[in-house]
Amino acid sequence: MMPYDDTNIFAKILRGEIPSTKIYETDAVLAIMDIMPQSEGHCLVIPKSASRNLLDAEDAALQSAMVEVARLARATKSAFGADGVSVMQFNEAAGGQTVYHLHFHVIPRYEGLVLKGHGASGMADPSALAEQAERIRQHLA
Amino acid sequence: MMPYDDTNIFAKILRGEIPSTKIYETDAVLAIMDIMPQSEGHCLVIPKSASRNLLDAEDAALQSAMVEVARLARATKSAFGADGVSVMQFNEAAGGQTVYHLHFHVIPRYEGLVLKGHGASGMADPSALAEQAERIRQHLA
Repeated sequence: MMPYDDTNIFAKILRGEIPSTKIYETDAVLAIMDIMPQSEGHCLVIPKSASRNLLDAEDAALQSAMVEVARLARATKSAFGADGVSVMQFNEAAGGQTVYHLHFHVIPRYEGLVLKGHGASGMADPSALAEQAERIRQHLA
Repeated sequence: MMPYDDTNIFAKILRGEIPSTKIYETDAVLAIMDIMPQSEGHCLVIPKSASRNLLDAEDAALQSAMVEVARLARATKSAFGADGVSVMQFNEAAGGQTVYHLHFHVIPRYEGLVLKGHGASGMADPSALAEQAERIRQHLA
């Protein structure tokens, strides 16, 4: 397994070197909108601690992340009237990983809508993402 | 959201009413082989506590499950020489859920192999699953 490399895009976002559409943060995680959403409301939970993925993550990081994943699953389902939610977490290229900092996808799902490929619709409009982040915040328990 | 219904297949497996290929169990979870594997080594983490999915799960159940998901991700990658691992967790029918008891898919991934649909290859041979479960146990940290 490759060592953690802190030049990845999520490490830069965590350091504030590049912008993101933040939903909220805790001591342990940052929750942001995915910039290439596969459905309306697609967001990410990014642990602040450094690990490449699940394979080298500390238990505490996984535990705190999962609680926020569930919180966002409930909030996005409610905020967007979604019919379901898919949670995905990818490890290494063969596993679907493209950014090498541990993260979890929270993807609201809608009946009759097939999931788009990641990046299939290109970059989302930042103002639309900001509006979605605000809607999610209003539905956080 | 529909209430939890304890006649689902994982509840029956947890009660020992129907068989499964067990990898191991803890106080909090049961880890079994998926009977319709999407790749070699596809396994499931099933919390023993009753919840329909992530949306109604207790934080403690999510936390303990996630630690076992990571443990199985490492073990299956090692046991089968996988190139990566995909973790998936589905909520409600639109989210991909087919059994209404919270569970996590741990799916070893192999370079050049596209993921099979769930059930695309039908039911796995039980003796092959038993052999895979034993291989995973030998690689558990």
